[in-house]
Amino acid sequence: MSDTRKPGLSRRGLFGATAGGAALLGGLGGSRLALLAGAAGVTAATAADAAATGAEVPPGQLDDYYGFWSSGQTGELRIFGVPSMREMMRVPVFNRCSATGWGLTNESLKILTQDQTPENKAFLAKRGLKAFQNGDLHHPHMSFTDGTYDGRYLFMNDKANTRVARIRCDIMKPDKIIDIPNAHDIHGLRPQKYPRTGYVFCNGEHEAPLVNDGKILDDPKQYVTIFTAVDGDTMKVAWQVIVDGNLDNVDADYQGKYAISSCYNSEMGMNIPEMTASETDWAVVFNIKRIEEGVKAGDYKEMNGVPVLDGRHGSKYTRYIPVPNSPHGVNTAPDGKYVVVNGKLSPTCTVLDLSKIDEMFEKDLDPRYAVVAEPELGLGPLHTAFDGKGNAFTTLFLDSQVVKWDIDKAIRAFAGEKVDPIIAKIDVEYQPGHNHTSMGETKEADGKWLISLNKFSKDRFINVGPLKPENDQLIAISDGKFEIVHDGPTFAEPHDCIMVRRDIVNPLSVYKRDDPMWEDARKMAEADGVKLEDGADQPIRDGNKVRVYMWSSAPTFSLEKFTVKEGDEVTVTITNVDDVDDLTHGFTISNYGVAMEIGPQATASVTFTADRPGVHWFYCQWFCHALHMEMRGRMFVEPKAI
Amino acid sequence: MSDTRKPGLSRRGLFGATAGGAALLGGLGGSRLALLAGAAGVTAATAADAAATGAEVPPGQLDDYYGFWSSGQTGELRIFGVPSMREMMRVPVFNRCSATGWGLTNESLKILTQDQTPENKAFLAKRGLKAFQNGDLHHPHMSFTDGTYDGRYLFMNDKANTRVARIRCDIMKPDKIIDIPNAHDIHGLRPQKYPRTGYVFCNGEHEAPLVNDGKILDDPKQYVTIFTAVDGDTMKVAWQVIVDGNLDNVDADYQGKYAISSCYNSEMGMNIPEMTASETDWAVVFNIKRIEEGVKAGDYKEMNGVPVLDGRHGSKYTRYIPVPNSPHGVNTAPDGKYVVVNGKLSPTCTVLDLSKIDEMFEKDLDPRYAVVAEPELGLGPLHTAFDGKGNAFTTLFLDSQVVKWDIDKAIRAFAGEKVDPIIAKIDVEYQPGHNHTSMGETKEADGKWLISLNKFSKDRFINVGPLKPENDQLIAISDGKFEIVHDGPTFAEPHDCIMVRRDIVNPLSVYKRDDPMWEDARKMAEADGVKLEDGADQPIRDGNKVRVYMWSSAPTFSLEKFTVKEGDEVTVTITNVDDVDDLTHGFTISNYGVAMEIGPQATASVTFTADRPGVHWFYCQWFCHALHMEMRGRMFVEPKAI
Repeated sequence: MSDTRKPGLSRRGLFGATAGGAALLGGLGGSRLALLAGAAGVTAATAADAAATGAEVPPGQLDDYYGFWSSGQTGELRIFGVPSMREMMRVPVFNRCSATGWGLTNESLKILTQDQTPENKAFLAKRGLKAFQNGDLHHPHMSFTDGTYDGRYLFMNDKANTRVARIRCDIMKPDKIIDIPNAHDIHGLRPQKYPRTGYVFCNGEHEAPLVNDGKILDDPKQYVTIFTAVDGDTMKVAWQVIVDGNLDNVDADYQGKYAISSCYNSEMGMNIPEMTASETDWAVVFNIKRIEEGVKAGDYKEMNGVPVLDGRHGSKYTRYIPVPNSPHGVNTAPDGKYVVVNGKLSPTCTVLDLSKIDEMFEKDLDPRYAVVAEPELGLGPLHTAFDGKGNAFTTLFLDSQVVKWDIDKAIRAFAGEKVDPIIAKIDVEYQPGHNHTSMGETKEADGKWLISLNKFSKDRFINVGPLKPENDQLIAISDGKFEIVHDGPTFAEPHDCIMVRRDIVNPLSVYKRDDPMWEDARKMAEADGVKLEDGADQPIRDGNKVRVYMWSSAPTFSLEKFTVKEGDEVTVTITNVDDVDDLTHGFTISNYGVAMEIGPQATASVTFTADRPGVHWFYCQWFCHALHMEMRGRMFVEPKAI
Repeated sequence: MSDTRKPGLSRRGLFGATAGGAALLGGLGGSRLALLAGAAGVTAATAADAAATGAEVPPGQLDDYYGFWSSGQTGELRIFGVPSMREMMRVPVFNRCSATGWGLTNESLKILTQDQTPENKAFLAKRGLKAFQNGDLHHPHMSFTDGTYDGRYLFMNDKANTRVARIRCDIMKPDKIIDIPNAHDIHGLRPQKYPRTGYVFCNGEHEAPLVNDGKILDDPKQYVTIFTAVDGDTMKVAWQVIVDGNLDNVDADYQGKYAISSCYNSEMGMNIPEMTASETDWAVVFNIKRIEEGVKAGDYKEMNGVPVLDGRHGSKYTRYIPVPNSPHGVNTAPDGKYVVVNGKLSPTCTVLDLSKIDEMFEKDLDPRYAVVAEPELGLGPLHTAFDGKGNAFTTLFLDSQVVKWDIDKAIRAFAGEKVDPIIAKIDVEYQPGHNHTSMGETKEADGKWLISLNKFSKDRFINVGPLKPENDQLIAISDGKFEIVHDGPTFAEPHDCIMVRRDIVNPLSVYKRDDPMWEDARKMAEADGVKLEDGADQPIRDGNKVRVYMWSSAPTFSLEKFTVKEGDEVTVTITNVDDVDDLTHGFTISNYGVAMEIGPQATASVTFTADRPGVHWFYCQWFCHALHMEMRGRMFVEPKAI
């Protein structure tokens, strides 16, 4: 099946780099039919029998893949089962979670605050806050060993407040959340694939003065963009590189040599006409070895404790490969040979041959020397996924389609051969952004499932009001299939996802008592002569600080009541001594804004001021037992005035 | 099929009201097989072909029912599609939402704060907060007219911080969140069914001193429990009634005469042995007409602006009907004749004949005069749902089963006839709490679908770590079926749900410009001489208060940049002038903790202090356009020191 675009249709005609041209795109929100009027699209059938494609997971059966979904501005990670597309778990990361107490408990606040910049700490303190309460989590990726997922960690960005987080896959909770200094608004993020992670590469998307203290304001010439490598083991920033252009997405190679970022707005424009003025922007290639040598040689400026190298045009650390206007996604093929840079405002994808990059750094070559293909695929190509069998799948945002194409044929066509790389197109509903194939960003890509994360759902679901869900569509791609088998509504905004084979992920079901998460609580208890799992019969008073130690075992807390004084700073520490799978307890103090999760064998604590006198019930809010409602007790707050 | 319990097995033997007896229940977390060892259970087949039962909703097809799910301690409402069991939308209510800015925007803060008690306002202010950031949302129920859903509102409780919320079904956002004074920890909630809602009945679960200022602490004899009727139109508390015993769940009749609450812990015990000591507790019946007359006659004490009547034993306003130990769910059958009170610690359900309640209030009758059946159903009956065809479905928490039984046969058996009311039992996975049938709490119960909301999922899904999802199972019940067709993992904790026919719910897709939600923003703009949809070219300064008005239209904000001074109190008000379905914009200010949703034709605003000098990008975080990433601008904060 051939490309549906009319040959000769001018890209500039559709995407003229003027405000007027941009305004033409305003119709995107409209129906696809209106958008595509005149495009003689021939598409693959979308009707599908889910059962026939093996997408159904009957009651009691397990999914084959873990799906790790971002949530965009919701700030959490989501765990899906694939192919059932059921959301299995939410993992609060950058957001404040009412259920688990993430952002309230001492254990979560430690993770949220211990790697904050002093500037952020001060900024938040002025608001009476310890941590930001929002995040914009776009790109969740697993740690690699030898080119494939190793089940250790998940890494993810926060564009809203310039942070990077790590989740431990043994317990599926974050253990590190770090502020990235110097950079602004981390967007694209990918881990080093080889030999292992290693580095986590993070794109600072937005440009700003290098020292952003207000002395430079409306002077874009003095703005810079920062690329960051985080050490995935220590979660410290290893080094940063100043680059030209806004960094968008990033991927790594399979040799541990390079990271490649897409850069839009090479113009350093401050509005859409300026940002889209140039016909070309670029992909920037980072030479990891040279950068490490530069750091060793002291070829950097230290800023906020981080070595910052200059990687702007002319630097030995980078190469800028011109690609058509405003590239977006960057995706390394599982064979390790090619990187696909997706055109966004160009109907093309640019294929880079990674084997040519060494030479580009060593010799003074044509900057497009590594470009080996540039197929025209359709309108608005944003991201590409792979089946490990030589095929690529690219989302076409404007066409609301996914195009399947043959990488080898695209290369041959670029070399002049009369061959059409496009295999098929499929309609998706509507306007796809990221896509992903099962294991598709590893050398073990298995070509079974493709997800298209669509930004609009419009009429695909029962109407739930002005705010509609996104629509994550599951597409069967094994054995030559190319069929949508599931429409999946999701809350804002599953920006990106990965699909990991089940055998790679092996979490615990019950916490280990010596987990580092409650190390501080353990030390505090030891200092008080208390064993966490035994609790204490009475609150321990230390001036106006009061420490309450309890255990929980369905359906009781170890204390039926405890007494504090108005104005006391109270720390309640609870250890769930139940060691049964799925037996999570909760601890809520009514009308005190206190609620937290305590997993089996876990310890959790919360500190608050007892500034409301009276009788206040605490209760277990995680259903645990037939006598769950009876699992409660009283906190007495003696008033000052009596 | 008969009850699986061994005849003659003593309830006291299983549920001895001693600490030791309670401890026996600790094994609930274990596998059902272990629990049920020795119980010769014969169950209906659970294997099911989902496709054959019509539970599949293929891509592009719409669900037949709206499912409104609570989220327990997560604090939000969830909208599901049934039978696909896909989560369509999250509606933040009591929680702080990173994506929508609920709890941050001026519009949401108005709803969250305008009906706070002065005591709560002061308590929160001490913490630097305007609203609580957590909630425990158990029971979502729709407004009724003439015994069935009318599609106007959804009402729901917050047990954690004693609140009640209302959601407008036209836009699916809360418009009222009120603190309930005098009461503690609102649990059960149901709307008046007839003639309309009318009242929303709210159970204060926990007992406390009537004036809880700390003068009375460890003196349970002076504790009381409060039943509240909220006016569902004005969202003001109409009246409250003091009762004996802890209020658990509640339901209303189909005549507008009575509300019936279950009361556990009639003992007013303060720990499990005390709470479960008595063989019987009670259902308390509230006589609405008498209470209204009492209010008119001034037979109340006014407390915090609310008339509080005394409905304790001996009152004319209430009747206390003894039922076996620790009743839990209360469910009125769709025929309007019967109410089922579920036994929890008794293996029985108690059926009350509503037609006998009038007499009970008028004459001095046996307090169990209205009891017409008390079938033994199995272990741990918690909630009952109905198919509108005379059958009832009761969750058995301990047995991990749902039992289908015949109400009429139960009544005949109670009268002495040798007839077994139990029709069938089905295993559910695991430990079910609430259940619900399609339209089952209305006179239009249609007997198509049953949901069992199970508290544990254990091994039913891929392992996602120590915190496991709940498991909402969909059961086909039409045409005599009784089959599980879908296992649905859900994040903490879908405590309760309702399923509403699709034709009843008709939300808008685009906001009306004159929506009251942004009335304050409109007034502020008018005072500034600005039209919201036109924005203002420059910030409007008023001392150190600065107001910025922008419109958004994909892919631009009307301002490319604006300037404020360090320390200014800045209010940014954005009006989304796009009027296309699903074209929501967002507004995030990087590194400022600011992010909010602006639906099509909506206005949203946020107020913050500009205490971080420098260049700060604002951007649209709700994917809107091919040039979405270019939809951004700069806030310049001029430093004080320059």
